[in-house]
Amino acid sequence: MITVSWDDPVVRARLVEIRKRSPFVYGLTNYVAATLSANVLLAVGAAPAIGSAPGWPATFGRGAAAVWVNTAALMASSARDLQETVRGAQDAGVPWVLDPVAFGAGCAEYDGLVRQLLDFSPSVIRGNASELMALAGAEAGGKGVESTQSSHDAIPHIQTLARRTGAVVAVSGATDYIVSGSSLFAVKGGDVRLTRVTGAGCALGALVAAFLPVSETVVEGTCAAHAVYAAAAERARARTVGTGSFGVALLDELSMLAGLQ
Amino acid sequence: MITVSWDDPVVRARLVEIRKRSPFVYGLTNYVAATLSANVLLAVGAAPAIGSAPGWPATFGRGAAAVWVNTAALMASSARDLQETVRGAQDAGVPWVLDPVAFGAGCAEYDGLVRQLLDFSPSVIRGNASELMALAGAEAGGKGVESTQSSHDAIPHIQTLARRTGAVVAVSGATDYIVSGSSLFAVKGGDVRLTRVTGAGCALGALVAAFLPVSETVVEGTCAAHAVYAAAAERARARTVGTGSFGVALLDELSMLAGLQ
Amino acid sequence: MITVSWDDPVVRARLVEIRKRSPFVYGLTNYVAATLSANVLLAVGAAPAIGSAPGWPATFGRGAAAVWVNTAALMASSARDLQETVRGAQDAGVPWVLDPVAFGAGCAEYDGLVRQLLDFSPSVIRGNASELMALAGAEAGGKGVESTQSSHDAIPHIQTLARRTGAVVAVSGATDYIVSGSSLFAVKGGDVRLTRVTGAGCALGALVAAFLPVSETVVEGTCAAHAVYAAAAERARARTVGTGSFGVALLDELSMLAGLQ
Repeated sequence: MITVSWDDPVVRARLVEIRKRSPFVYGLTNYVAATLSANVLLAVGAAPAIGSAPGWPATFGRGAAAVWVNTAALMASSARDLQETVRGAQDAGVPWVLDPVAFGAGCAEYDGLVRQLLDFSPSVIRGNASELMALAGAEAGGKGVESTQSSHDAIPHIQTLARRTGAVVAVSGATDYIVSGSSLFAVKGGDVRLTRVTGAGCALGALVAAFLPVSETVVEGTCAAHAVYAAAAERARARTVGTGSFGVALLDELSMLAGLQ
Repeated sequence: MITVSWDDPVVRARLVEIRKRSPFVYGLTNYVAATLSANVLLAVGAAPAIGSAPGWPATFGRGAAAVWVNTAALMASSARDLQETVRGAQDAGVPWVLDPVAFGAGCAEYDGLVRQLLDFSPSVIRGNASELMALAGAEAGGKGVESTQSSHDAIPHIQTLARRTGAVVAVSGATDYIVSGSSLFAVKGGDVRLTRVTGAGCALGALVAAFLPVSETVVEGTCAAHAVYAAAAERARARTVGTGSFGVALLDELSMLAGLQ
Repeated sequence: MITVSWDDPVVRARLVEIRKRSPFVYGLTNYVAATLSANVLLAVGAAPAIGSAPGWPATFGRGAAAVWVNTAALMASSARDLQETVRGAQDAGVPWVLDPVAFGAGCAEYDGLVRQLLDFSPSVIRGNASELMALAGAEAGGKGVESTQSSHDAIPHIQTLARRTGAVVAVSGATDYIVSGSSLFAVKGGDVRLTRVTGAGCALGALVAAFLPVSETVVEGTCAAHAVYAAAAERARARTVGTGSFGVALLDELSMLAGLQ
């Protein structure tokens, strides 16, 4: 197991590259998390667009530098919107991130729609332990959108999922774990308060997408995104009390790490 | 009239209970207020999920520990989504909160859809004075989603509404009033700046829902939620200038009252 | 070219008037920007309502003191919702602002829907340089919702657009420019960090709408809104580091300029 952190020069170099190139990152996500996701991307210098206005899924799915799809987007986008987006990405060779929010929480209809997206070869699958364990076939139903499992317990399951899908798989938790083929990476730090800011996990999916077009490999970009996020969360934690200030400081620290302020 | 405040040990005990049990609270609400509502719930330790992704209304309406429905959710959810949610809650004995945003502001079609939800026996109806007076049958049309009436003037009308529906009815204003049968409760404090943060009223509806599964009675939980919110708002006010900081500090104070930070 | 700023007594007088009259401002906008837009309006004392719940577009489009339509609203509202809103506004003589987000970014279907709204005589058209240049017929495709052109380069194009539509046209950038007939106005200041807070441009469209019912002319109100926003952004910049705090401070400064806190 290899530990990745903000101290790694490659992580820093990739973040600089985002600021320089300002990749256009297109996402479908739920409206609870959409604003924070866009602000996380803007804080590091990426150029986000979110949502399925008519024509956007096909055009931006194909035309963006990277794409992320948070399946709770289904609360305001159609299953067809999601499929057009990831079909466009797959056809055009655009890397994309699948975030299967609330998968396995008990909604068969919803879970079926999420599972269909696996056919479009996501580059990365990220989520919490309950979601990813359920997607790998384990009994692990979460409480709505919250996990009831630890990220460490999820490791063998995300290894199965990575093998089966060919995707890099990343699970968030006290320590984040990232699996690529037979390799396992860990990102420590972060903060439990990330679970007390709505959409903080979803926004990490967006951040992973932003790193993909500036990284040499998918797993490198995925690890770098997690390491930057953990570092920002730790710094935000050190100077705030309360969940509201923490959410604001998380954006501040991301923008300062990126040199954007 | 009985005054309830943060000094009441029952109020504090219920808040501790939310943190301990982390009830799963499911809500349909409008996308303007959704993020704040989720963050208010997370700040006190509840586990929120919001929105009508396919299958969620029926599954989560029935499976949550409590439900809230803010009818402006109709801007991104169908009337059927709202009905499935509250039918599930009613069938499964899950307590639920109705927040009839903008009722009586002049849209007959919208008002008709809101009124249909009364058939599903809400545990609590909360809103501003204009909305609740209109729902009780008085001439009280608000200005869009804003009230043009005082909470004090609404008392006789919410008493009528409570009698007619069997629900606990709570009106927000300079002082909040809560009616249960023939009992009247008051929660003082709060802050006018709550009306200058979008969704702050809507988020109170979510907070009321979180208190229901940890309280002995519906009215106890409703009063406790209002008392906690008022205390957080007062503390937030005391240390901020400006409406932006106030909204952030409101979350901080809620999380500190809950011992979560 | 006339420069307008917060030092202009007319600008200050109009802001006071918003606080006094609290105009009801109705908007359709995208869910990424909706919360900030509502909070900007609340910070200066206006009474916002957002979204297309059933019946709202026709009722509030006609009944509001002013309306704004951010066309990325199409991600959660139908083309018919947008048309009913602006038809209502046009019929009732309610001034309205068109914000053609992402126009010209490559989606023919979306661009066609935006263009149809020009038939309903917007009072103001505001956007970034790429969007307005594309709407004026120039080759200027943006990167998703981001501009790739400077506001200064857009001047001749917005003059064309103003002449063709009869609307006041305002372009945001390092300096904002506002065109009315043959007159050209400039608002300096603002801050590049406004481009790092999602929805900050969209929220300016909402603020312009709020100024229209309290101003003597459309162009006066448009210039005043831009001047107030630039002043708030400058002050917010002076006391924050990082994009998260900046967004919060922007609201604080608006509320303090408005005397609302």
